[in-house]
Amino acid sequence: MSDTMLAVVKPEAAHGAEVRDVKIPTYGRTDVLVKVKVASICGTDLHIYQWDKWAQGRIHPPLIPGHEFCGEVVAFGDEVTSVKAGDFVSAEMHVACGKCLQCRTGESHICQHVKIIGVDANGAFAEYVVIPESNIWQLDPAIPQDYASILDPLGNAVHTVLAGDIAAKSVAITGCGPIGLFSIAVARACGATEIFAVEVNEHRRRIAEQMKPDFVLDPTKDDVYHVVMDSTGGTGVDVLLEMAGRSEAIRLGFRILRLGGRISMLGIPSKPVELNFAEDVIFKGATIQGINGRRMYQTWYQMTALLKDGKLDLHPVITDRIGMTDFAKGMERLKTGVASKILVSPNGSQ
Amino acid sequence: MSDTMLAVVKPEAAHGAEVRDVKIPTYGRTDVLVKVKVASICGTDLHIYQWDKWAQGRIHPPLIPGHEFCGEVVAFGDEVTSVKAGDFVSAEMHVACGKCLQCRTGESHICQHVKIIGVDANGAFAEYVVIPESNIWQLDPAIPQDYASILDPLGNAVHTVLAGDIAAKSVAITGCGPIGLFSIAVARACGATEIFAVEVNEHRRRIAEQMKPDFVLDPTKDDVYHVVMDSTGGTGVDVLLEMAGRSEAIRLGFRILRLGGRISMLGIPSKPVELNFAEDVIFKGATIQGINGRRMYQTWYQMTALLKDGKLDLHPVITDRIGMTDFAKGMERLKTGVASKILVSPNGSQ
Amino acid sequence: MSDTMLAVVKPEAAHGAEVRDVKIPTYGRTDVLVKVKVASICGTDLHIYQWDKWAQGRIHPPLIPGHEFCGEVVAFGDEVTSVKAGDFVSAEMHVACGKCLQCRTGESHICQHVKIIGVDANGAFAEYVVIPESNIWQLDPAIPQDYASILDPLGNAVHTVLAGDIAAKSVAITGCGPIGLFSIAVARACGATEIFAVEVNEHRRRIAEQMKPDFVLDPTKDDVYHVVMDSTGGTGVDVLLEMAGRSEAIRLGFRILRLGGRISMLGIPSKPVELNFAEDVIFKGATIQGINGRRMYQTWYQMTALLKDGKLDLHPVITDRIGMTDFAKGMERLKTGVASKILVSPNGSQ
Amino acid sequence: MSDTMLAVVKPEAAHGAEVRDVKIPTYGRTDVLVKVKVASICGTDLHIYQWDKWAQGRIHPPLIPGHEFCGEVVAFGDEVTSVKAGDFVSAEMHVACGKCLQCRTGESHICQHVKIIGVDANGAFAEYVVIPESNIWQLDPAIPQDYASILDPLGNAVHTVLAGDIAAKSVAITGCGPIGLFSIAVARACGATEIFAVEVNEHRRRIAEQMKPDFVLDPTKDDVYHVVMDSTGGTGVDVLLEMAGRSEAIRLGFRILRLGGRISMLGIPSKPVELNFAEDVIFKGATIQGINGRRMYQTWYQMTALLKDGKLDLHPVITDRIGMTDFAKGMERLKTGVASKILVSPNGSQ
Repeated sequence: MSDTMLAVVKPEAAHGAEVRDVKIPTYGRTDVLVKVKVASICGTDLHIYQWDKWAQGRIHPPLIPGHEFCGEVVAFGDEVTSVKAGDFVSAEMHVACGKCLQCRTGESHICQHVKIIGVDANGAFAEYVVIPESNIWQLDPAIPQDYASILDPLGNAVHTVLAGDIAAKSVAITGCGPIGLFSIAVARACGATEIFAVEVNEHRRRIAEQMKPDFVLDPTKDDVYHVVMDSTGGTGVDVLLEMAGRSEAIRLGFRILRLGGRISMLGIPSKPVELNFAEDVIFKGATIQGINGRRMYQTWYQMTALLKDGKLDLHPVITDRIGMTDFAKGMERLKTGVASKILVSPNGSQ
Repeated sequence: MSDTMLAVVKPEAAHGAEVRDVKIPTYGRTDVLVKVKVASICGTDLHIYQWDKWAQGRIHPPLIPGHEFCGEVVAFGDEVTSVKAGDFVSAEMHVACGKCLQCRTGESHICQHVKIIGVDANGAFAEYVVIPESNIWQLDPAIPQDYASILDPLGNAVHTVLAGDIAAKSVAITGCGPIGLFSIAVARACGATEIFAVEVNEHRRRIAEQMKPDFVLDPTKDDVYHVVMDSTGGTGVDVLLEMAGRSEAIRLGFRILRLGGRISMLGIPSKPVELNFAEDVIFKGATIQGINGRRMYQTWYQMTALLKDGKLDLHPVITDRIGMTDFAKGMERLKTGVASKILVSPNGSQ
Repeated sequence: MSDTMLAVVKPEAAHGAEVRDVKIPTYGRTDVLVKVKVASICGTDLHIYQWDKWAQGRIHPPLIPGHEFCGEVVAFGDEVTSVKAGDFVSAEMHVACGKCLQCRTGESHICQHVKIIGVDANGAFAEYVVIPESNIWQLDPAIPQDYASILDPLGNAVHTVLAGDIAAKSVAITGCGPIGLFSIAVARACGATEIFAVEVNEHRRRIAEQMKPDFVLDPTKDDVYHVVMDSTGGTGVDVLLEMAGRSEAIRLGFRILRLGGRISMLGIPSKPVELNFAEDVIFKGATIQGINGRRMYQTWYQMTALLKDGKLDLHPVITDRIGMTDFAKGMERLKTGVASKILVSPNGSQ
Repeated sequence: MSDTMLAVVKPEAAHGAEVRDVKIPTYGRTDVLVKVKVASICGTDLHIYQWDKWAQGRIHPPLIPGHEFCGEVVAFGDEVTSVKAGDFVSAEMHVACGKCLQCRTGESHICQHVKIIGVDANGAFAEYVVIPESNIWQLDPAIPQDYASILDPLGNAVHTVLAGDIAAKSVAITGCGPIGLFSIAVARACGATEIFAVEVNEHRRRIAEQMKPDFVLDPTKDDVYHVVMDSTGGTGVDVLLEMAGRSEAIRLGFRILRLGGRISMLGIPSKPVELNFAEDVIFKGATIQGINGRRMYQTWYQMTALLKDGKLDLHPVITDRIGMTDFAKGMERLKTGVASKILVSPNGSQ
């Protein structure tokens, strides 16, 4: 084994990234070194690449991004007990402190001091990545490699959908990026009845159609409110999964929710949102949940069970496969919405 | 319309029942008169027929039994506002008092003063049945008549399965009478992953196989404990749905449950059951729920949504169709377990 | 019994109200006629009196306002079975339809077709008021008359406080009108530990101090954020009860909430509120609940139990007692915040 | 510091224990060495002392028992970061594996591989005890030393009481050992209204009276069923906290529970219990929870908040204070029920 590897590197505080040779990372007594098989690209990676305002405030270059992946264990520290070489693994990339109130009460997905591998430390767009043993997730060999590389965003969807009752309920999903698309599959598998997918981008609506919700609606053209009311006997949807993170989508979502409904919000608005709390929250008796990350590790158990049972068909979401040297091209396709989930092979080319 | 109708009548405090002409019932200002299309037979009807100890303590003959049915509205009292002639309906046959603590806090399925139509008052094995408006359930014409006649036991299954989380969970169902069989379909539709069906009766196991759980086990021959432990990585099942009402099944069920699991008990044991509370409840951190009837009317909304969405295939459970004059023959077939759910046509013969 | 009574009447679509003789109301077969002992004034009554924008859109004069009261049963319709003359009663003034999805699933406090007595029909600022039997709440004679007349707003407080876990939790209450003040007492009685009361009006802060929270803070002068953070070890409060209905209070409340905390919103903002959903809801993993009315009738059971057990000292909130002829003066005192809860005697003068 | 210390030692597989000098324990890289200030005696210690059947199956002598204590940090391993010498601490003595399903989903109180310090490893009836850093609980100096030494059983009570809603609810507590007694205080502090304490032992009833529940009942003389029914308007109690672990108490508890009530079971029956599941669980719509240990570490946060706020008066429960050399005398007093909670000073004599 050489002591260098190929990696995507954000070298400095500016637009772009390089693909180049770097040292294979060292690992500590409680760490696991994983050879990456497939990594996949998240919208967050695009923020980092484009060096937007959020990235400027959070990222300290040089950094290897990438927080969605699967791979094979190649080595580990001397206090590690639960893995062996050759294990097929993925990982929860939110590294919780283990000592704050939230961590000590089963809520480490909202740890006060969380660090994210691929954001706050070197990540998975590389041939090798180092993961603390506590965050390794052992994978059943029955789970396909493609799916194994997208467990992070699939987990966001599972966390959101299962944050409340979903069986026998009507559901609207506003925003059909990969997590919104996954949510269609998860909601259906978990007993949701009528599913409304709402998305402004045409490319994304086309992919949404392949996920087979009952309705795919374009809020710039369709009268979403009336379609939902007509189809639900005038009551509105039981559950809203907010995946768009845009003011208009959020306000529309609240309007189509029934009295006493649930709203689980995952999409991150880039600025404050004005909302009619009187009508849309208080008189409505709504319950709103902020959703962050994946529950450690309940969400991982849940998605493993669903995947092993073959309940989820996620293929339409995986639109692109590239080699790591084509990372910049992947960024371009993601930006326009032509691509949904892009899988990256750490070998130089696909 | 003649003023008499054909009905199954329990004439006196003894074994058996008669099929004979009786007066069409009168209805009050808040009642609805329904022409029965299909009624179906419940184990409770067999208890009444056989005049067992429970029946002797509860039933006051003469009585027309029958509490599972669908039909068509033919007339109603002058204070009724929500139905019209010709409506396709079923009904919740537990008539709650509306005034006790439980009724006033959304728990009318455990009303302190409940009366059951078909048990405490004349029921649906007849050409006509009278139902209070409050208990009528309007049916979507899309719901097939066969299914419409079995909403009462299907509702038991939906209430039991959805009494806690089920998505992405492993489930054991002990007892495969009609409600146990329905529970397989409901659990699957609502995201249960591995499903274990346990049943001693060979006829019932054969029907269970048609419901396609992952395992159909005979506790008199199969080593249920080890099959479950092997298949769940040694942890046991997340959820136990107890539908057998027998000591051995209950004790087995508690043993195969994982630490922290849920047990929802619907099957009614005829005598006290001895249980190792230390190991099987307390150290296990188990949660046990007694399940009675159907939640009014949440369960009805849930099953309607599932049925309209085509999520439930219940055909294997419907084994027999008879005319009302063959009621005694139906009782015989039910007793042996050859028949599961028997549909009864109120017309003299099928 | 004369056939007229004294009442507060909103005679027409304009500012103000008259106190004058009107006909004693007639009652239907399922109604109860109650002789009012004490009624109390709500902020809603001030909106109606001042004829603000909300009132203009909702109220159809002539109207007798008033929806907080206690009294004695004097007569009832022939279908009423649960009261007798002389019974000491109050009432839930939200009259639910009983037929919508929400009503049929135990959520009638958010009925789609609710009518409010005192808003949509003649209310309790009168010598007599008519209430449907279903909405009558029988009172234990042990409950003092003063408290019996304020069960409607006390119920708002109980509903809000008990909408989630409160025992052993730190709580901030933004807005110290009567419901906010009651919430201090209810939260304390139900095990809340540290309680922060936040209020801009000096009169209200003085009353708040008598309710003995740990802190009474003026957000225009005190650094509420740092006081809360210092006192909670930097984590923020577990629970926020939003009773102010103002943008600044809402935004402050979200900021002082801990990661994973609960926000129960009762105060009604008169216009849309701009909120940083990314930081204050989503990353925070917050749960927000819109709270409307009182749960029928769980809240009533809860507050009765708390009052009978002597757990609530609400006297500081009752600042004024007036006769009905002084209604206009009461309105003036309420407007400035000098008065908190004003009790009205239906007899001409106090 | 000498290298020996005084300790209670169970030297061999037989009745009794010795107080003698042993080596001060060594500690690992992630461990904390604590100088014990006060330890307290649990019923489990009596089982170990008496060498009953349970002890014979679980305990491997030689063993220092003791799992309730408070003390001062004197030293720690080089990977420990969250304590410093002189810290006032107690500890969760259930050491969870951190790797099983339950541990990874916030349920480590029912860890599949738990080890208990004082049962499976040397405990706190000694001058020094070794605790893993993860299990140390930092104490506010405001918490009195006496209370700090009984957080383990107080935590059992808090876990049991707060395992469901308690505010505004009537509660029966069957069994008034220390945990039952603590539960009276915790339930009261958290808003329980009517409290019924049931206990057969006269000494324990006398202590129970000092905790001021509404009723202290002797099931061998009082008609508990009728007292409860009379006092609850015939509905029964909302919540049963089962702390006796005896068949008669359990069956009585189930009978006095209202339809839809909660039963939280902590008392450990030494043999199977026969229960009428039909009447007392299923038709009743009861929810039964097995309660084990304390939630890590939610329960610890909760009891700290309650103690800091001065909400709990536990003094009546602390009946005895002894020096470690009087351990055998303490065992005698515990056996008869004369003593409730016995505090042990690790110095030779009190």
